[in-house]
Amino acid sequence: MKYEDFLVTSLGKAGVVSPLKHTKRTDSPVYNFVDDSERILYDVSLENFNICRETGEMPVSFEKAGPRENIFFEPAKTKVGIVTCGGLCPGLNNVIRSIVNELYYRYGIGRVLGIKYGYEGLIPKYNHPVVELTASMVSNIHLIGGTFLGSSRGNQDVEKMVDTLEIMNINVLFCIGGDGTLRGAHDIYKEIEKRKLKICVAGIPKTIDNDIDLIQKSFGFETAFSIANDIIRNAHNEASGAFNGIALVKLMGRDSGFIAASAALSIQEVNFVLIPEITFDLYGQRGFLRILKKRLIERQHAVIVVAEGAGQEFFETSDNDKDASGNVKNKDIGVYLKDKISEEFKKKGFPHSIKYIDPSYIIRSSPANANDSKFCNLLAQNAVHAALSGKTDFVVGFWNNQFTLMPIPMVVAKRKKIDVEGELWWNVLEATGQPISMKNP
Amino acid sequence: MKYEDFLVTSLGKAGVVSPLKHTKRTDSPVYNFVDDSERILYDVSLENFNICRETGEMPVSFEKAGPRENIFFEPAKTKVGIVTCGGLCPGLNNVIRSIVNELYYRYGIGRVLGIKYGYEGLIPKYNHPVVELTASMVSNIHLIGGTFLGSSRGNQDVEKMVDTLEIMNINVLFCIGGDGTLRGAHDIYKEIEKRKLKICVAGIPKTIDNDIDLIQKSFGFETAFSIANDIIRNAHNEASGAFNGIALVKLMGRDSGFIAASAALSIQEVNFVLIPEITFDLYGQRGFLRILKKRLIERQHAVIVVAEGAGQEFFETSDNDKDASGNVKNKDIGVYLKDKISEEFKKKGFPHSIKYIDPSYIIRSSPANANDSKFCNLLAQNAVHAALSGKTDFVVGFWNNQFTLMPIPMVVAKRKKIDVEGELWWNVLEATGQPISMKNP
Amino acid sequence: MKYEDFLVTSLGKAGVVSPLKHTKRTDSPVYNFVDDSERILYDVSLENFNICRETGEMPVSFEKAGPRENIFFEPAKTKVGIVTCGGLCPGLNNVIRSIVNELYYRYGIGRVLGIKYGYEGLIPKYNHPVVELTASMVSNIHLIGGTFLGSSRGNQDVEKMVDTLEIMNINVLFCIGGDGTLRGAHDIYKEIEKRKLKICVAGIPKTIDNDIDLIQKSFGFETAFSIANDIIRNAHNEASGAFNGIALVKLMGRDSGFIAASAALSIQEVNFVLIPEITFDLYGQRGFLRILKKRLIERQHAVIVVAEGAGQEFFETSDNDKDASGNVKNKDIGVYLKDKISEEFKKKGFPHSIKYIDPSYIIRSSPANANDSKFCNLLAQNAVHAALSGKTDFVVGFWNNQFTLMPIPMVVAKRKKIDVEGELWWNVLEATGQPISMKNP
Amino acid sequence: MKYEDFLVTSLGKAGVVSPLKHTKRTDSPVYNFVDDSERILYDVSLENFNICRETGEMPVSFEKAGPRENIFFEPAKTKVGIVTCGGLCPGLNNVIRSIVNELYYRYGIGRVLGIKYGYEGLIPKYNHPVVELTASMVSNIHLIGGTFLGSSRGNQDVEKMVDTLEIMNINVLFCIGGDGTLRGAHDIYKEIEKRKLKICVAGIPKTIDNDIDLIQKSFGFETAFSIANDIIRNAHNEASGAFNGIALVKLMGRDSGFIAASAALSIQEVNFVLIPEITFDLYGQRGFLRILKKRLIERQHAVIVVAEGAGQEFFETSDNDKDASGNVKNKDIGVYLKDKISEEFKKKGFPHSIKYIDPSYIIRSSPANANDSKFCNLLAQNAVHAALSGKTDFVVGFWNNQFTLMPIPMVVAKRKKIDVEGELWWNVLEATGQPISMKNP
Repeated sequence: MKYEDFLVTSLGKAGVVSPLKHTKRTDSPVYNFVDDSERILYDVSLENFNICRETGEMPVSFEKAGPRENIFFEPAKTKVGIVTCGGLCPGLNNVIRSIVNELYYRYGIGRVLGIKYGYEGLIPKYNHPVVELTASMVSNIHLIGGTFLGSSRGNQDVEKMVDTLEIMNINVLFCIGGDGTLRGAHDIYKEIEKRKLKICVAGIPKTIDNDIDLIQKSFGFETAFSIANDIIRNAHNEASGAFNGIALVKLMGRDSGFIAASAALSIQEVNFVLIPEITFDLYGQRGFLRILKKRLIERQHAVIVVAEGAGQEFFETSDNDKDASGNVKNKDIGVYLKDKISEEFKKKGFPHSIKYIDPSYIIRSSPANANDSKFCNLLAQNAVHAALSGKTDFVVGFWNNQFTLMPIPMVVAKRKKIDVEGELWWNVLEATGQPISMKNP
Repeated sequence: MKYEDFLVTSLGKAGVVSPLKHTKRTDSPVYNFVDDSERILYDVSLENFNICRETGEMPVSFEKAGPRENIFFEPAKTKVGIVTCGGLCPGLNNVIRSIVNELYYRYGIGRVLGIKYGYEGLIPKYNHPVVELTASMVSNIHLIGGTFLGSSRGNQDVEKMVDTLEIMNINVLFCIGGDGTLRGAHDIYKEIEKRKLKICVAGIPKTIDNDIDLIQKSFGFETAFSIANDIIRNAHNEASGAFNGIALVKLMGRDSGFIAASAALSIQEVNFVLIPEITFDLYGQRGFLRILKKRLIERQHAVIVVAEGAGQEFFETSDNDKDASGNVKNKDIGVYLKDKISEEFKKKGFPHSIKYIDPSYIIRSSPANANDSKFCNLLAQNAVHAALSGKTDFVVGFWNNQFTLMPIPMVVAKRKKIDVEGELWWNVLEATGQPISMKNP
Repeated sequence: MKYEDFLVTSLGKAGVVSPLKHTKRTDSPVYNFVDDSERILYDVSLENFNICRETGEMPVSFEKAGPRENIFFEPAKTKVGIVTCGGLCPGLNNVIRSIVNELYYRYGIGRVLGIKYGYEGLIPKYNHPVVELTASMVSNIHLIGGTFLGSSRGNQDVEKMVDTLEIMNINVLFCIGGDGTLRGAHDIYKEIEKRKLKICVAGIPKTIDNDIDLIQKSFGFETAFSIANDIIRNAHNEASGAFNGIALVKLMGRDSGFIAASAALSIQEVNFVLIPEITFDLYGQRGFLRILKKRLIERQHAVIVVAEGAGQEFFETSDNDKDASGNVKNKDIGVYLKDKISEEFKKKGFPHSIKYIDPSYIIRSSPANANDSKFCNLLAQNAVHAALSGKTDFVVGFWNNQFTLMPIPMVVAKRKKIDVEGELWWNVLEATGQPISMKNP
Repeated sequence: MKYEDFLVTSLGKAGVVSPLKHTKRTDSPVYNFVDDSERILYDVSLENFNICRETGEMPVSFEKAGPRENIFFEPAKTKVGIVTCGGLCPGLNNVIRSIVNELYYRYGIGRVLGIKYGYEGLIPKYNHPVVELTASMVSNIHLIGGTFLGSSRGNQDVEKMVDTLEIMNINVLFCIGGDGTLRGAHDIYKEIEKRKLKICVAGIPKTIDNDIDLIQKSFGFETAFSIANDIIRNAHNEASGAFNGIALVKLMGRDSGFIAASAALSIQEVNFVLIPEITFDLYGQRGFLRILKKRLIERQHAVIVVAEGAGQEFFETSDNDKDASGNVKNKDIGVYLKDKISEEFKKKGFPHSIKYIDPSYIIRSSPANANDSKFCNLLAQNAVHAALSGKTDFVVGFWNNQFTLMPIPMVVAKRKKIDVEGELWWNVLEATGQPISMKNP
């Protein structure tokens, strides 16, 4: 990663005075506008500081988000589109609502269109209606989970989508979605650039798994592991309510185990956390089944949390097994584990009772909790600030507790994963007491 | 049903003055003890009153529960056992806790044994430990779902169980469980009678499905449909978040659809409620799939709630398919429906998105809500009053909002089901707008 | 009370066939319409049955609510008004929503007016706007507490109100409110009768205190004590977090202590429940302060719940101290007790720490829980059935778990109070361990 | 602030090998121990980096917390004390529990004493018992709010407290409390140093107001504003339920308005946030009452959130008005505002209805939410790591999302306050629409 990689593209000169009542005058008790040159360090260790000082290198840093004194789009002439893509995530409606409110109440922009059912809504053949979004229409949508606009998976023909943007005279498109969606947004941006249009493409990263790179936390993630926490509490009751009771909870986490790990750290009742970042064996001396049995003999119950992407090495895959978003479809590790545990313990005549719980749809469709609501509101506001100031092909990030702006390609280059030699995972090992490795030598 | 069927058996003369500070003196501002002769009418319609008046028949009525002025067991010499059997149900720990507290604080009985893992705990070969229950030990267990004592399914050898009761010198056994458990309790009672022992067997009916006959409501049922209500709210978000989105929620209800019906009445967002009491067709002019498709075309989303016992006619069954409790194991109607819907709509090229949610383990392992907590406390107290007064082979019931005592055999004779020509079901039809029948002619 | 007192008034012959798809044909799997002659017994004891049988007296009974085969108002020509009066109560929006939905979806009545801010909305001088209520407008209001229509206290000039009803061509007025509101509704009915108008006045009883006579439970009451339960749990933490910590929680209950009593029965952590039905002394041998001190010495903390109407005998009152609803304004017993406890213990040099909590506004503005939601829905539907069938001057009640219809004057004649010699109160004494009396001899 | 100010004191050489199974070998898939030299930058702006680079100054940084390879105390010989001081805060029990668990399960230290009722528990004359804390005893305490150990306000005689530590042979004292408590801990440290004892004093900062300097967030704060969020939602129902309805909610925030501001940002329904950092006028052209009236005329309702420390300039204070913790006792701005609003609007004949809500005791006594639970667990673990490694006179902080160690004096030097020219406050102004200033010129 180099300093230069993190410079955000602009549509052009921000020549319009912002309608926001900020000021730079030092005699006024208000917020200073943020300058494009303000940046946040990526690495906050003193060690890195010393290295950069010695080498003279420019440390990697991210542009600070926030309201700009001058903006690019003239509010009275600006028309905005919002689209939500991919799976549900707590907070989607908060983000939609806050974009609409910020545009309307702060920038005076009332022409906001809701694109229905993801990128499909930009393709004529689907014939999905467009919704005119007003502040009063969205006033209560944050109380409900899901997405007010509907969603769909997968990208669509880029040229047709940009045709639609042109036809609808949309100046700013907010794309709320995961890395597939953001790649789609980047493609839209490139098509727009090719056509030399003045349309801004703003990405708002959505990943309930919290696995988008260079972003400290994504909206909905905290709500997700908080609900998982409560469900694991109940699962623990199932486990301890039977002799050698086992509760097996599958949580979200296609490529990374953040939800599973965080839930385990908050509830502190989980005995095994299985994540995509760590392979494990089922059988043999150090295999999972043997260690599980040991735990049952000692304590007569066990709680297992498995991220959906864990243990995929147990399955053969073919290239065809992809969902509409282009993700490799995971085989169901939860059902697989449940079957293998039952099979093994039955074979050995080891009495047990296993309960399998898959709460994913319940979790992702919940409304955002208070902290996520606050986060969604600020995230949306910062997306609006940046988009109206003429930035494009960017996402709003969050790093060291500050909102940042980053080029889309930098955050979709790879996924964020749990560092299995790092502090988070060590804390999980401490909280569960599970062995560092469940691989046979 | 006849008046005579509902007379509760007694161990003998209640010759000990109750230590409760009740009084019958009219000059004292306290509760009057309940007399064994006080009874609650079964049928509260004026019509039935008139019929009985004409025919001279004695109307069916249930003995009123409550503290008796004289009791059978001398507190200082009494030893009590508590056992919980069958599946989890919200409120189990409240019942355990309130029995212990009532015995200790009101009757001065401190020797209470917790039998572990259901009736297994009364059989030597399982070697489950016995727990001495004290008021301080159970003081916080009601905050947690599940059962503090553990549970198991199925009955055990009656003679061995009564041997254990004799060896442990237990005078009163509280059996908390469903109709299988209560039948077991009745068998224990018969064995006790055969041996001419002075041991009381008290049944506390537990059925999350609310399907025990002649009992207005069972503990945990309200908590269950309340949590189901919240989950359906989220399921509705899943449904409306996708084009032609379908959310299919399987709820508990082996033989009766009370949870599904009540949840639908509280949330008012369900479009189809499928229950064991009503058979339906999948295909054909009036079949479910066609009606579902119609709904989707009109509104682009649908929420379906199916009780686990619905649609069992779609499966072939054999006598072997019974669980340890002796219940016929239901085939999974949820998975079946999901597959059939997908199959049909794919075949027809009808775009749709289906999400299947099975929250049963999450619901049944939750702690009781406030109203159920109150109910559990009173239920337990009334069980203690009745048991100490020497009643046996009884359950504590609830009818016309009053606690009652009934012979075990009367409540396990058949299950309570939804009257599909009655008010409850009509209300569900109103709330969902689903057709009265989904059977082809 | 006599049988004759409970006959509900009708506007006239129900000559219109109900659009509901009910049937009386026995070959049809649907709900039978309810007949006007169906009634529910008031007293369900076998004893009362025997008395009536002997005396030949007609037992007191209430008309059963439910859909009628014939109705009075022709749907296409019917216009409906809804008004909410008095203090907030969980479930108000559920009731409003269900009336609108039942009228629209079941009876095909789309002309529904929301009267704003209680009876004020029927008086021209206040100039409050009228809201046209549609099914889509009310679709999410039940997720939020409060009242969508606004409310106000107090009655208004009856003639002017009926003038407004005439001018607006309202045929059916639903008045949702407490006993003051219902008295107002009765006055409106009398004025309507005087003018020989065919306007129906339907009362939907609202009392968070659950103190309306002859009604088993009122909507919002369960939600209220459930939230109180959680707050008392926290109050208990405050009490036990300090040496000789006292938590004093004031709950609603102007004339009756049902919320305080029910919350104490569900949470089982309350040491003293003080209610309007029982006077007590502060000082002296058996006075409250001495008993409180004793509890603190024994256990180092105490939780007190006081209903707002308790201890009013400590205050001098004048006739002027009435609120707009005509209720005598209670002096603040919570603050008074807190001051007296502090004063006394300081005087005696008894170390302690007291925390006073008054959660009333938080409780009454909450949304209804699932069970109350279900109840509100059915209550509203039954109100619609009855009103459209031409009943007037009635309330929808609930007795022995069935919805009933009763003349307004019968339910406002007196308030329902806790029977301090009855089962409920005895259970509270059991749960708290507080003395039967805290009056000095 | 200078680099040198942030060096943490040690008791001596860490000569014992940690029993934690960490490793530094690069071939092992486990967490590397943290080295004392690892530090986190205070200022993460690129600007500050450039300044330091130019000036050659060492940037301010904080020591990184985490497990050390060598520790100071030999586990088998170590005895630990835990004390909780000051007001309740969500998460206290999680912290206690995690300290006990970390000591027992990870370091093998089983001798842990709970000091009852704050620093009082170290003073013989109070005669409070000491509790031996075991892992099983604390296993469920985190489900309940409050503090398992009890608390008290105010410091005590330092010499006597250290006498007690010596008598009890305590090697490590964990002091959980606010800045008063931490100052007390520093005094204890100085007395220990004077006596040349090898006793470690570890501070765990507790402030529900989130106002401890140099600490990004304190435990319980998120739970606090989350509950406040829900209560404001209800308050909003009260406001909109009456004509010109005003809901006035007083929240915690003696010196800083973080809870009020964060709650307003999450709920987005607050119209006025009043905080200690900003003075305002009641009367006059730009005074609060005039602006409130304007809002009511426009929208007929208003929600006001006031932090308890706001508006103290309206009161005269004397030096005597301090609580046991030495904090100036705030006059009740909530009641004051309510009275002034009523008075003014009555005088002007402006119809209105005001509801005042003070939920502080309910909020602070709640259990921690999932995210706070996770945070408390990690905070406690890091406190244990640092204390056992021989650090003393330190607090565990949190900065840039990493746990840090800081000398106590640095964090109690001043309080953290809202920067009223910063981003947080600007966001509040955006969310509420309230004017930047309510001071008359």
